Amino acid sequence: MDQTKFVYFFGNGQADGDASMKNLLGGKGANLAEMTRLGVPVPSGFTISTEVCGLYLAQGGYPAGLKEQVATALGKMEEAMGATFGSAENPLLLSVRSGARVSMPGMMDTVLNLGLNDTTVEGMISRTGDARFAYDSYRRFVTMYSDVVLGVAHHHFEEMINAKKAQVGKKMDTEMSADDWKDLVGQFKAKVQQETGKPFPESPEDQLWGAIGAVFNSWNIPRAIVYRKLNDIPEEWGTAVNVQSMVFGNMGEDCATGVAFTRDPSTGENRFYGEYLVNAQGEDVVAGIRTPHQVTIEGKNRQDSDLAAMEEELPELYKELYAVQQRLEKHYSDMQDIEFTIQQGKLWLLQTRNGKRTAKAALKIAVDMVNEGMIDKQTAIMRVAPDTLDQLLHPMLDPKADRTVVGKALPASPGAATGMVVFNSDDAEKWAEEGKKVMLVRDETSPEDIHGMHSAQGIITARGGMTSHAAVVARGMGRPCVSGCSELHISGNSCKIGSLEVKEGDWLTIDGSTGEIMQGQVATMDPELSGDFATFMEWAEEIARMKVRTNADNPEDARTARNFGAQGIGLCRTEHMFFGAERIINMRGMILAENDDDRRKSIAKILPYQREDFEGLFREMKGFPVTIRLLDPPLHEFIPHDEEGQQEVAESTGMPLEKVKARVESLKEFNPMLGHRGCRLGVSYPEVYEMQAQAIMEAACHLVKNEGYTIIPEIMIPLVGVVSELKLLREKCAAVCEKVMQENGVKLEYMIGTMVELPRAAVTADQIAAEADFFSFGTNDLTQTTMGISRDDSGPFLKEYVDKNLLPKDPFVSIDQVGVGGLVRMGAEKGRSTKPGLKLGVCGEHGGDPDSIGFFETVGLDYVSCSPYRVPIARLAAAQAAVNNKK
Amino acid sequence: MDQTKFVYFFGNGQADGDASMKNLLGGKGANLAEMTRLGVPVPSGFTISTEVCGLYLAQGGYPAGLKEQVATALGKMEEAMGATFGSAENPLLLSVRSGARVSMPGMMDTVLNLGLNDTTVEGMISRTGDARFAYDSYRRFVTMYSDVVLGVAHHHFEEMINAKKAQVGKKMDTEMSADDWKDLVGQFKAKVQQETGKPFPESPEDQLWGAIGAVFNSWNIPRAIVYRKLNDIPEEWGTAVNVQSMVFGNMGEDCATGVAFTRDPSTGENRFYGEYLVNAQGEDVVAGIRTPHQVTIEGKNRQDSDLAAMEEELPELYKELYAVQQRLEKHYSDMQDIEFTIQQGKLWLLQTRNGKRTAKAALKIAVDMVNEGMIDKQTAIMRVAPDTLDQLLHPMLDPKADRTVVGKALPASPGAATGMVVFNSDDAEKWAEEGKKVMLVRDETSPEDIHGMHSAQGIITARGGMTSHAAVVARGMGRPCVSGCSELHISGNSCKIGSLEVKEGDWLTIDGSTGEIMQGQVATMDPELSGDFATFMEWAEEIARMKVRTNADNPEDARTARNFGAQGIGLCRTEHMFFGAERIINMRGMILAENDDDRRKSIAKILPYQREDFEGLFREMKGFPVTIRLLDPPLHEFIPHDEEGQQEVAESTGMPLEKVKARVESLKEFNPMLGHRGCRLGVSYPEVYEMQAQAIMEAACHLVKNEGYTIIPEIMIPLVGVVSELKLLREKCAAVCEKVMQENGVKLEYMIGTMVELPRAAVTADQIAAEADFFSFGTNDLTQTTMGISRDDSGPFLKEYVDKNLLPKDPFVSIDQVGVGGLVRMGAEKGRSTKPGLKLGVCGEHGGDPDSIGFFETVGLDYVSCSPYRVPIARLAAAQAAVNNKK
Repeated sequence: MDQTKFVYFFGNGQADGDASMKNLLGGKGANLAEMTRLGVPVPSGFTISTEVCGLYLAQGGYPAGLKEQVATALGKMEEAMGATFGSAENPLLLSVRSGARVSMPGMMDTVLNLGLNDTTVEGMISRTGDARFAYDSYRRFVTMYSDVVLGVAHHHFEEMINAKKAQVGKKMDTEMSADDWKDLVGQFKAKVQQETGKPFPESPEDQLWGAIGAVFNSWNIPRAIVYRKLNDIPEEWGTAVNVQSMVFGNMGEDCATGVAFTRDPSTGENRFYGEYLVNAQGEDVVAGIRTPHQVTIEGKNRQDSDLAAMEEELPELYKELYAVQQRLEKHYSDMQDIEFTIQQGKLWLLQTRNGKRTAKAALKIAVDMVNEGMIDKQTAIMRVAPDTLDQLLHPMLDPKADRTVVGKALPASPGAATGMVVFNSDDAEKWAEEGKKVMLVRDETSPEDIHGMHSAQGIITARGGMTSHAAVVARGMGRPCVSGCSELHISGNSCKIGSLEVKEGDWLTIDGSTGEIMQGQVATMDPELSGDFATFMEWAEEIARMKVRTNADNPEDARTARNFGAQGIGLCRTEHMFFGAERIINMRGMILAENDDDRRKSIAKILPYQREDFEGLFREMKGFPVTIRLLDPPLHEFIPHDEEGQQEVAESTGMPLEKVKARVESLKEFNPMLGHRGCRLGVSYPEVYEMQAQAIMEAACHLVKNEGYTIIPEIMIPLVGVVSELKLLREKCAAVCEKVMQENGVKLEYMIGTMVELPRAAVTADQIAAEADFFSFGTNDLTQTTMGISRDDSGPFLKEYVDKNLLPKDPFVSIDQVGVGGLVRMGAEKGRSTKPGLKLGVCGEHGGDPDSIGFFETVGLDYVSCSPYRVPIARLAAAQAAVNNKK
Repeated sequence: MDQTKFVYFFGNGQADGDASMKNLLGGKGANLAEMTRLGVPVPSGFTISTEVCGLYLAQGGYPAGLKEQVATALGKMEEAMGATFGSAENPLLLSVRSGARVSMPGMMDTVLNLGLNDTTVEGMISRTGDARFAYDSYRRFVTMYSDVVLGVAHHHFEEMINAKKAQVGKKMDTEMSADDWKDLVGQFKAKVQQETGKPFPESPEDQLWGAIGAVFNSWNIPRAIVYRKLNDIPEEWGTAVNVQSMVFGNMGEDCATGVAFTRDPSTGENRFYGEYLVNAQGEDVVAGIRTPHQVTIEGKNRQDSDLAAMEEELPELYKELYAVQQRLEKHYSDMQDIEFTIQQGKLWLLQTRNGKRTAKAALKIAVDMVNEGMIDKQTAIMRVAPDTLDQLLHPMLDPKADRTVVGKALPASPGAATGMVVFNSDDAEKWAEEGKKVMLVRDETSPEDIHGMHSAQGIITARGGMTSHAAVVARGMGRPCVSGCSELHISGNSCKIGSLEVKEGDWLTIDGSTGEIMQGQVATMDPELSGDFATFMEWAEEIARMKVRTNADNPEDARTARNFGAQGIGLCRTEHMFFGAERIINMRGMILAENDDDRRKSIAKILPYQREDFEGLFREMKGFPVTIRLLDPPLHEFIPHDEEGQQEVAESTGMPLEKVKARVESLKEFNPMLGHRGCRLGVSYPEVYEMQAQAIMEAACHLVKNEGYTIIPEIMIPLVGVVSELKLLREKCAAVCEKVMQENGVKLEYMIGTMVELPRAAVTADQIAAEADFFSFGTNDLTQTTMGISRDDSGPFLKEYVDKNLLPKDPFVSIDQVGVGGLVRMGAEKGRSTKPGLKLGVCGEHGGDPDSIGFFETVGLDYVSCSPYRVPIARLAAAQAAVNNKK
């Protein structure tokens, strides 16, 4: 009768398991088997399967046959390693580790040197000739085993070591002698007896089974259970146990240990790169106490190092290592991070894993590997985390430059910037015109600061979160920005950041990727967008199903986004266009008008500007769709709220101050977010929307007629909640469009659609779709209304929510897939139930967030739209989403 | 071969149709047939079925056989009426009317006196001996026919009449002679020839077919189509045509006409009540030119009238009429409003319909008819419109009292009130304590005005809609209130309403049911809740499936609601409890606390007050559930925003003014509705919720232990959007509850649930239900977030939306069933998918709106909760909803 196989041996180039058996052997066990099969010299060992974990925990004991299978595997290990478990001459020592399907912090990690006792320690001494090393290893084993297997806390042993040091007058561990450690081993064991009521296990067998049981039990300790819950790991998976032979890099001068990367993890160059130390443990290489040697001569030369390279010192072993690393990279088709040990002249590989790398390296490695025929394009694009591209798109601080960080704020818009401080937008513009580099420092920004933000190198605000006005606009412009700096206090023409007094004209530098504020000028470097970058992005576009558009209100942003590969404009906010100096006067005239006639006159004066705006955008986006949102924000945003500003308005419009004030008062709202805005303005003042539709169509007709453009303007009505709103405004806009086309003798396609940004729009999307040529999900506002959270006011509690694990992430950064996303999915499905081909996109901040983009792919949206500097990220995320969704 | 039946005759006590054939004969035709079958003397006639309409419009002509069927029916009519169509001696004249399944304004209404021409007019003269009457009828027929059938507009004829009057030197129609009218008939016909190119049809047959065709064609005129669209009436229904014999109450002294009700429509008393006039047309009775006589002697005596009653003048006809009205009421099982005509000594019934009645009458008639065995209880409760009950619950203006209306506002809270004007709540309280009746006049109210509103007889505000703070709180208290009076301008201790100057202490009266503001004192009357009212409400409760609870924060409101039959409290808002003079100090102390310790100390001081509050509520609601919502509003509502108030706070809390100001500043929010409130406060300051849970349970334990109460407190966590919030706070509250029970040695059931008032809560209700013992839908906030409309700010556009037909109703008054209601349904279904027995209720303003209650019945909610004065309305609406939903 066949017995169930519980134990999977590996060693001597042969293994019972392989990489495909992660579920049964855990990630680590499967990988050790795989490496062995590859012919890589791996210290021999065996894996007890995850099945045994389930049986052990259910039955409270080991299944029949396990002991025999372990004994057999141990025998094979002894043969492979030429050593014997429990031997007084040449003892085999073991490591015991847990290993679940996925790496799981919280569970038992490792017991090293298992098999040491008063007998085998002598064997170790005779093998190494180093009693101090042997007893040091022994005392480490006893403390580690006692702690993780027997539950006797570490501090007991620390106290005894300190007492011993005091007794013998020594301070450092390194000063301790073999006898000191030997004495302490005896004390430790007595302490274990005292604490547990049982002697410390002397038998290597007992030690081994104790450790195996501890690994299995650690599956159910509280912090492992919590981790499983948080990460949705099923209880029934269980953990495997990996038992492996110990090898030592510190047994003498014919021993060494090192780490290496198959390619340069910093630049991505295809060169073998590593560091090693003779007669050392792994920790010694990383800890930096001794300066490690380079593995290759090329590496030594690059670093101008005097220390001999492994390639020189140990040429044969180097050749072997080089071959192994090549085999591993080829096998895993990815850059590997490997750990190796040389024990008495023999090379052992302890670990291989995909190596961490910089964004630049990731991109280069992916592109190179495709060119080398190692991977296909689809694999390549999965190899780069989209968000890391951001590092490549912005100016960076010169890593070598000195800096003095004086404050910390939110990393609102990436990139580094340095400039002279100004405290208002007019000064920013003026100084910039004089050729100065300025840093705009404000409590918060409003639409009236657009020109100042444009003129500034960077922006610092005291208030506002990651989705505040400053943050959103700065990201859109690609201006570095740090926001919500609680240490910043502005008063007049100076400010304090923490204890630092900053006056107008002082230099500050910010890193918008970290949120740091630095005193003075710190050198910055421009981004290098190499040919690899362009190649890589092309592949992403081939693979992606969704298009990527940009949110842009002006030709400059549109051009930036086009350069980054945007395929159209998904959101042009027209309100920013009303803030130009000549325009705002007429906008205010329109708002203050006391009758329809005056209102129409003011609006008519804005028309030429609007037409010019749209023409500029259409030119930049030649051949691509442009979605223009009609006026959205409440009117009070266009009128100053302070008396001085109102006085100016009174003068410029020729209206008594009292009337201006009264109008401002009447426009005041408790919750402007839920007030008289969006299409509600269109309903109240249809002439505004009609003017905008006219400007859009006149611009389009002009370019089509005189310059032979193909343009499909998409007119977007915001904040629709009820289909009747859209129907009314669609009819009004369509009438204007038809009229303009008739007057110009031009016939062109145009679309009229809506933003789905209210829960009601999603719930009634089947009705609304009947009047819409497209939907664009405005997930910023949809998040605000669905969750009932104002993003301007969420600062004080959203952070607390994420900290307390009440929310996984800030829902304004990454879409809440279950709640807000549930409504997006409902809106898409209902919309397409009415119009199967309905064009669907998203234009909230989420359009640039990779996780959100992954979600939108599953919903079947046609495109995402994001700020210009997020376009490459979104393009890559869209490609990855397409691949993941196909799986 | 049977021919399809197109024409349905009625007359002489026999009819082809009956009341069940509304689809085929239209409402009017079916009802005329039914009355004829009952033996009621109805002028004979016939109905051409709606089927013919479809055929006629599809084919552009009449189906084969129709002409013959019409001829046959006409023959029977002649026989029944003893007159002949087209006869020069005794002509039968006809009325022709449209009649669809449901009454449809917009379509052709009526042509009267059809059949008149130069020949038959002579027959009319010889029958009546009154040439002027005959020619007056003739000219009326020609103008009416020309207008509605031939499309020659009325004004043409008006102009000719005016010209004629000028010519003959007369001013009034009544002065015109037979010859004058005769001459005009000739002129009219010439005008028709000129306008249409065809002569006016002389042949009665042609007239009849012209009219029939016009009725059918009127089904498709634009205003009929619009009406159909607005009311969801399918095009294929079509209209029937009713052709009926004319009878005349104005043919001489043996003629009469009248209207009557089978019961008193004002009081509901079971007495036959009517008015009539000899030798008159129907319009004469209603127009009030001649004083009508009473039908019964009893009516004459009641009115102290000198005019002879029909019962005296025409005793035989009276007896006949009396029998007919008895038969009709019995047949229709409802109070009937009838029209009758006596033509030359013969009684004819022209119409019967269910009579309109006052709320008081509706109630009395319903109860009486059950007692008389005419209808069952279920029918009775369907007979009273729930909203009309409101008239019975509040003081009313004495209808006989003189009044001078000086302003108009929104009817925010029903009932009449009169009082002396004060302009702040402290004065209101002080004056009321001195025994004065006060009218509180404010720009708007805030939670700090609660004591003033309580002290006042009524409230007037300059700002705020039907769901403003003033309106909601006033309705809750049953205080009459008119809100949003745009003509009201307050300055200091006086105000202007329109042009009226009002000083402190001046008397004003308001009618909260109409929104009127009156100068001085107008006498009011207390409501009379008769025994019928109680009986009727008991029946409603028997029939209703849903329970009705009340929203109440204090024992007084709870008591009022209990008296109105509330079966528990569905929403106790605890925030109002924090405004008492001693409490607000500690509340502010809690808000201004700089560390957890100080905060806990302030909170601990509020505990005894809270416990007392809850004990009071539990006592009033003995045996019924009480749902208590933990603290909900943002903290800034508890701190004054003006410097003076802040100075007071600084003094009372012993904190520097600067710190108070800084805290107020830090609490400021752009959109407080979407800010740091609800359970977000509980997350930030769990000690507040813990204190409230402790107070609730201590109050409950005390009453259970010492007074043997049965209490199931329902603790409600507000504004939950994510299940993790509820889980966290539920655990904290439950721990406190268990602790209190242990300390008191009491074990009682309690529930912890949540308000579903965010779209996300509805969308993820399956998750949230896992942590909730109940859901209460907070449809006020759910409407705000689902539609993205702040009710405080919606004034300027919501009215416009309703006016422009973009929304059918104010969604804060009656729930938006498709959008907001869609989320309520989703929340209920998802919640019960996790917990099948999950208790579901609603506690928004919609809980008192009959249409909304009808909707909630279809969702399967367990209860609705509304303000005390809406309880009877909700109870009746719940009963009607149960009946309608069963259908």
